[in-house]
Amino acid sequence: MKRIAFSLVAVAAVAGVVARMAYASGQPDGAVAPIYGITIPPGYRDWKLIAVDNLLVPGKADQVRAQLGNEIAIKAFEEGKVPFPDGAIIAAIHWTRVPSQGNNRVLAGPFPGAQSFVVGSSVNVQFMVKDSKKYAAAGGWGFADFTDGKPGSTALTETCFACHAPAKATDFVFTRYAP
Amino acid sequence: MKRIAFSLVAVAAVAGVVARMAYASGQPDGAVAPIYGITIPPGYRDWKLIAVDNLLVPGKADQVRAQLGNEIAIKAFEEGKVPFPDGAIIAAIHWTRVPSQGNNRVLAGPFPGAQSFVVGSSVNVQFMVKDSKKYAAAGGWGFADFTDGKPGSTALTETCFACHAPAKATDFVFTRYAP
Repeated sequence: MKRIAFSLVAVAAVAGVVARMAYASGQPDGAVAPIYGITIPPGYRDWKLIAVDNLLVPGKADQVRAQLGNEIAIKAFEEGKVPFPDGAIIAAIHWTRVPSQGNNRVLAGPFPGAQSFVVGSSVNVQFMVKDSKKYAAAGGWGFADFTDGKPGSTALTETCFACHAPAKATDFVFTRYAP
Repeated sequence: MKRIAFSLVAVAAVAGVVARMAYASGQPDGAVAPIYGITIPPGYRDWKLIAVDNLLVPGKADQVRAQLGNEIAIKAFEEGKVPFPDGAIIAAIHWTRVPSQGNNRVLAGPFPGAQSFVVGSSVNVQFMVKDSKKYAAAGGWGFADFTDGKPGSTALTETCFACHAPAKATDFVFTRYAP
């Protein structure tokens, strides 16, 4: 009984540290995502850039996106090594893509017909966390999705690995390092 | 005469250092861009992300783009301060935007009709360097453009400040920090 009580205190203490770290990094909370038990990595917004992309799902989504990596992930990308080593984390930040009328007015002079699309608002942020033992059943990766700091559902999170499975040759990572 | 000779040696020595720094950072050379005398800042590809965008000029350009900032620039963005302090540098990296058939095949299951666009190849990289004294005649900013490490022409570089002039309220910077 004493042991259980101690464990609860320890868990509460760790949760408190995580919550404070998350707060310090501008994240709204230290909520834990389902299945893989991932929290938002503090400071991820300041990680180095892997690549950028767009996703268009007609009638549903029009996004500009960036993938950032922690130091372990970036080093692996630069060296072109797969599988990624344990500790690698990739953050995928998704924003709505909106036309910039201001930019278009400026561009109209030198570039007639030019269309500029910029970041609108935050949609969500997703993480892949490499831990070959802990996440052995999912190719060694844990997956998480957060919208406004709140983790996605178990049902949503269950779809992550299945969707990444076709990228097995690149250790389940779709993104390539941009030159 | 002795003084001139000494200066040339000093210039050559500095140029050598710049060239070595550029080489160490993976840049092809230490070429100096016209008008503002800017060289490619070593390590810029590892700077923190400001924002991403798209530019479409029908028949001419279809780009995904990212803006990165050195520590001085990022701090100013985070604090929402203008004018940017001296030493701030913003890097704008431009790539061709290409459809990813591989991503589209994967997305077709969960997201019918989804279109993924990813980084194709490097187009160019542009820099804004803040030095309120040195570049007083151009709003305190020096501008440079590099394609494959080679600086753009004087004619091209002359257009930079005129194009940025409408953004005077935000210290001639169009990009907003993405959440």
